[in-house]
Amino acid sequence: MRFQFSLIAIGLEVTMIILFGVFVEYETDQITGTQSLSTHVNGSLDLYPLFQDIHVMIFAGFGFVMTFLKKYGFSSVGINLLIAALGLQWGTLVQGYLYSNGEKTRVGIRNMINADFSAATVLISFGAVLGKTSPVQMLIMTIIEIAVFAGNEYAVGARLLASDVGASMTIHAFGAYFGLAVAGVLYRPTLRKRHPNEESVYHSDIFAMIGTLFLWIFWPSFNSALADPGVNQHRAMVNTYFSLAACVVSVFAFSSLLEPGNRLNMVHIQNATLAGGVAVGACADMVVHPYFSMLIGSIAGIVSVLGFKYLTPLFTTKLRIHDTCGVHNLHGLPGVIGGLASILAIAVGETDRHSMDRQAAALFTSIATAIGGGLITGLILRIPVWGQPADQDCYDDAVYWKVPQRTEHDYHFQEYGGHSHQEIEI
Amino acid sequence: MRFQFSLIAIGLEVTMIILFGVFVEYETDQITGTQSLSTHVNGSLDLYPLFQDIHVMIFAGFGFVMTFLKKYGFSSVGINLLIAALGLQWGTLVQGYLYSNGEKTRVGIRNMINADFSAATVLISFGAVLGKTSPVQMLIMTIIEIAVFAGNEYAVGARLLASDVGASMTIHAFGAYFGLAVAGVLYRPTLRKRHPNEESVYHSDIFAMIGTLFLWIFWPSFNSALADPGVNQHRAMVNTYFSLAACVVSVFAFSSLLEPGNRLNMVHIQNATLAGGVAVGACADMVVHPYFSMLIGSIAGIVSVLGFKYLTPLFTTKLRIHDTCGVHNLHGLPGVIGGLASILAIAVGETDRHSMDRQAAALFTSIATAIGGGLITGLILRIPVWGQPADQDCYDDAVYWKVPQRTEHDYHFQEYGGHSHQEIEI
Amino acid sequence: MRFQFSLIAIGLEVTMIILFGVFVEYETDQITGTQSLSTHVNGSLDLYPLFQDIHVMIFAGFGFVMTFLKKYGFSSVGINLLIAALGLQWGTLVQGYLYSNGEKTRVGIRNMINADFSAATVLISFGAVLGKTSPVQMLIMTIIEIAVFAGNEYAVGARLLASDVGASMTIHAFGAYFGLAVAGVLYRPTLRKRHPNEESVYHSDIFAMIGTLFLWIFWPSFNSALADPGVNQHRAMVNTYFSLAACVVSVFAFSSLLEPGNRLNMVHIQNATLAGGVAVGACADMVVHPYFSMLIGSIAGIVSVLGFKYLTPLFTTKLRIHDTCGVHNLHGLPGVIGGLASILAIAVGETDRHSMDRQAAALFTSIATAIGGGLITGLILRIPVWGQPADQDCYDDAVYWKVPQRTEHDYHFQEYGGHSHQEIEI
Repeated sequence: MRFQFSLIAIGLEVTMIILFGVFVEYETDQITGTQSLSTHVNGSLDLYPLFQDIHVMIFAGFGFVMTFLKKYGFSSVGINLLIAALGLQWGTLVQGYLYSNGEKTRVGIRNMINADFSAATVLISFGAVLGKTSPVQMLIMTIIEIAVFAGNEYAVGARLLASDVGASMTIHAFGAYFGLAVAGVLYRPTLRKRHPNEESVYHSDIFAMIGTLFLWIFWPSFNSALADPGVNQHRAMVNTYFSLAACVVSVFAFSSLLEPGNRLNMVHIQNATLAGGVAVGACADMVVHPYFSMLIGSIAGIVSVLGFKYLTPLFTTKLRIHDTCGVHNLHGLPGVIGGLASILAIAVGETDRHSMDRQAAALFTSIATAIGGGLITGLILRIPVWGQPADQDCYDDAVYWKVPQRTEHDYHFQEYGGHSHQEIEI
Repeated sequence: MRFQFSLIAIGLEVTMIILFGVFVEYETDQITGTQSLSTHVNGSLDLYPLFQDIHVMIFAGFGFVMTFLKKYGFSSVGINLLIAALGLQWGTLVQGYLYSNGEKTRVGIRNMINADFSAATVLISFGAVLGKTSPVQMLIMTIIEIAVFAGNEYAVGARLLASDVGASMTIHAFGAYFGLAVAGVLYRPTLRKRHPNEESVYHSDIFAMIGTLFLWIFWPSFNSALADPGVNQHRAMVNTYFSLAACVVSVFAFSSLLEPGNRLNMVHIQNATLAGGVAVGACADMVVHPYFSMLIGSIAGIVSVLGFKYLTPLFTTKLRIHDTCGVHNLHGLPGVIGGLASILAIAVGETDRHSMDRQAAALFTSIATAIGGGLITGLILRIPVWGQPADQDCYDDAVYWKVPQRTEHDYHFQEYGGHSHQEIEI
Repeated sequence: MRFQFSLIAIGLEVTMIILFGVFVEYETDQITGTQSLSTHVNGSLDLYPLFQDIHVMIFAGFGFVMTFLKKYGFSSVGINLLIAALGLQWGTLVQGYLYSNGEKTRVGIRNMINADFSAATVLISFGAVLGKTSPVQMLIMTIIEIAVFAGNEYAVGARLLASDVGASMTIHAFGAYFGLAVAGVLYRPTLRKRHPNEESVYHSDIFAMIGTLFLWIFWPSFNSALADPGVNQHRAMVNTYFSLAACVVSVFAFSSLLEPGNRLNMVHIQNATLAGGVAVGACADMVVHPYFSMLIGSIAGIVSVLGFKYLTPLFTTKLRIHDTCGVHNLHGLPGVIGGLASILAIAVGETDRHSMDRQAAALFTSIATAIGGGLITGLILRIPVWGQPADQDCYDDAVYWKVPQRTEHDYHFQEYGGHSHQEIEI
């Protein structure tokens, strides 16, 4: 099936356009009365800077943070773009359907934020299977996962009425456990031994830091965009800012503590420094006090480093789950910590808006739905027709991309007058 | 003329400062009455986040998207900065003059957006001649092109009263055809055969994705910044968002469809994914329905991929126009599609604000003015005194830049304990 | 002391969390009355897009602009993150204490901007000692410098009532002279001869441009965020925008003028192009007219290029101060120019809000405090227990980081079918 990818992608895009034609209108068409329209549009436009921050996170942040693999940069940043672009269209439709009460979906800035969030969920799962799947498999996973995600998000948010403003549970824990379930089903014994391509080179690790930093910088927008405007939104920004700062210092401390020779490890800096943003998400808009956010951030960062050091190897060898980017350490565990922290915050707090039971149910539901959905998705992806890459093709752009023929080395060697090899080697 | 570049640059900057001293004041000085001043300033400050998004596109987006050439990264990102910095000053003056009715130009955030737009036009043309011109030639082209651009934009916007909120015609089509005309006049038969430097290496293609992604992410701001505040602005954001998403999926599908071995091609991903933003520009603020935006985006993306695959080689060999970055495929054709789409949208729409005739006239005027201006500019640039690089110096930073003497290879080889060449080669 | 770094970092973070628990509350808790709370929160949220722009500058801008060294990219972008994350917590506490009149500190978006500014000051000083200090030394410098910075900023802003909206004096000149004083105390005769690692490679210079561009793009936000809302803020944006544009053209002109073969020098483009933002800072919100901003920007850019060309070598050999990134040329001299420009602007202006004496006192106080604080800090950092890297370890990530074992060359050579070495060499 040479044209399988093209035909499926075209088919999906045509379907999206038709469904948008039938079900989607502008938010601004619906409202009558100049006064209320103006108020509404201004409220929507107030969200636009936050939307743009999140948009950077989804497309540049997630895209570059996965470029650490030495031979898989094109796929990391390219397939990330494909998944997110498809996912946001599909997310708009599915979420719109669930919240529309049978009417047309009216899209505005808020829908665009939610659509980007749908895409984020798939991108987290993508991290678990990065380099081991084909583009076709990713298209299929995007469609299935977003449907399940939207259903779970609706159940948790609109039915259980749980509080998860920064989506610790519904995006981060969900995306991680969904991805791990898929990775478990797709496991092959050859993954037990580290693949020679599953490594970074010096500059690929620096490319990944572009992603890390833009995720880190804009995380306060991620956690506050959907909070109630005003005080709650303000509090979500402040809590996330300080949680992330505390997380960074703790991650550096523990990375050096645990590595041989007390060296810092770029894997930790690229990933675990973000755990504070994940973990503070569920209680970001609550009155938890800044010091408590910092405590959550520090604990999440430390747990994340420990996860990369001890859990990920164990997962690969014992649980037979190979997690390429370590999404369990960055999104899974910190997401669970976030859910637990929100329960604790409600337990000690004065708020009666929230309920411990609902939070616990939300955490349990999200993880259970994710694992169930991921297992089924994994089985579907194992159908041989999708063309999963063979073991020797793992983490290699050359399988799906046209790659440059002349090498960087040739270029440097010939052109900029470097010492010849003879000089170096003798 | 060893100091030609320095002396021309200094002369231009001194001229700019003198002209600003004579003709330019703050917008905020002009208005009297506290109430109206406050209203005006707040309206202006509301535009500031959109301005900053566009500012990122001009300086980081355009700068990095051109770094794909293996030996021309310094010039791509550096000369981009020079052109844009000079262009925005000159654009402020020329556009200010045209709209000022003989009074002083009062600069505010809106002028800064327009000035960045002037710069964008030259940067698009820069893509057509990238690597084949000297910095002095670029200074001259910047001055001439922005004067012609501002005149055309004034004719189309203030005289014809055509609608082109995202500047599909006045910036994208104009910049592309201007650049192609210049490239045609500067054509040399040696360009027919692919220059050995006209290639990417693995990491230069990833650098280019930084530019692509920041252009892609912030395009909704580009298309909405100058729309009427409120509903129209809101609609321009929504339409651009969905047009770009649909464009990405279509581009991936057709890139794989057309390439040997069904491989994805980074040139398409870096460029054609943006065509949806260009093409939806002219009708972004109209009530075209989201599905229609997605249709425009998909068609523009597909046409752009086809252009890279079939038209660009034809241009080089038959039309004797060598278009380094393929701006015809990214800005030219999608800009024309944008103009046509706006005519269609008006034809089927209920709006009486717009007129099909005006749109058609705007499209024709923009392209004709661009080609005429480009041909004259090309002839001026061919005057031998500007020092155009010889064929063997094409696409090579070392001609105009101090480049590092030690090579990356030497560094990696010696320092990080790689296997010796002997081991590899035997 | 193998675990020294980890233990100190953990100790500092625990201290921060405890101090936040005792001294810091949300801004939004304090205000009573729905009307005034709503007004206040909205004012605070208006600052959020400016905060995010500055946040990008601190973490991505400063981080990447220092990645130019070929073997020190992990440390540049990593230790930058560590310093800034620690510094913003400590800055919140110290600045909060100084302005709180003995009450608790109430944190909001404005505090977050000020905290990021504290961090920026240390990052500037970090540039002077980059590659020659240990992570532990950086933690200590962060704690001391921010305390001194906050004291000086309070003296200049709240006591002297000087005007320095973009912090030319209190951040840029302060950070630069503090760093130079530290570098002077840490000087070793071996630094006189250029260290073999103190060089860039082709791609590390392009990574650095990511930092340069994001600093350049968002500088108008840096200079306007703390201006009086409305007209003054607006003016600060406009002045900075044009100052930076003029600076770029002048820097390109003088870089080519002074370099052998009239080649452009990436060191100048990466750094001196930003001098216009530094120098216009002190008078950015004053009615200085746009042409005057452009004049300041041009002069600062030219002085900065001259500094890199002539002063930095002189500093290393004669003054025994080795300034790795040339912060004296980017922040020191332009900061002084900014202070002098503000005095001149007041001298010729009509404003009676400002006073020349206060500005002169602010400039003198900032530099004197910085040098004094830097000398003491340098002496503390020389205590041998902190483990300063030996000469042969300078500018080398491998000392403190786990670095990839396989090299980029091996990868390119083997995988992408480059010509074999035999073919090239024979």
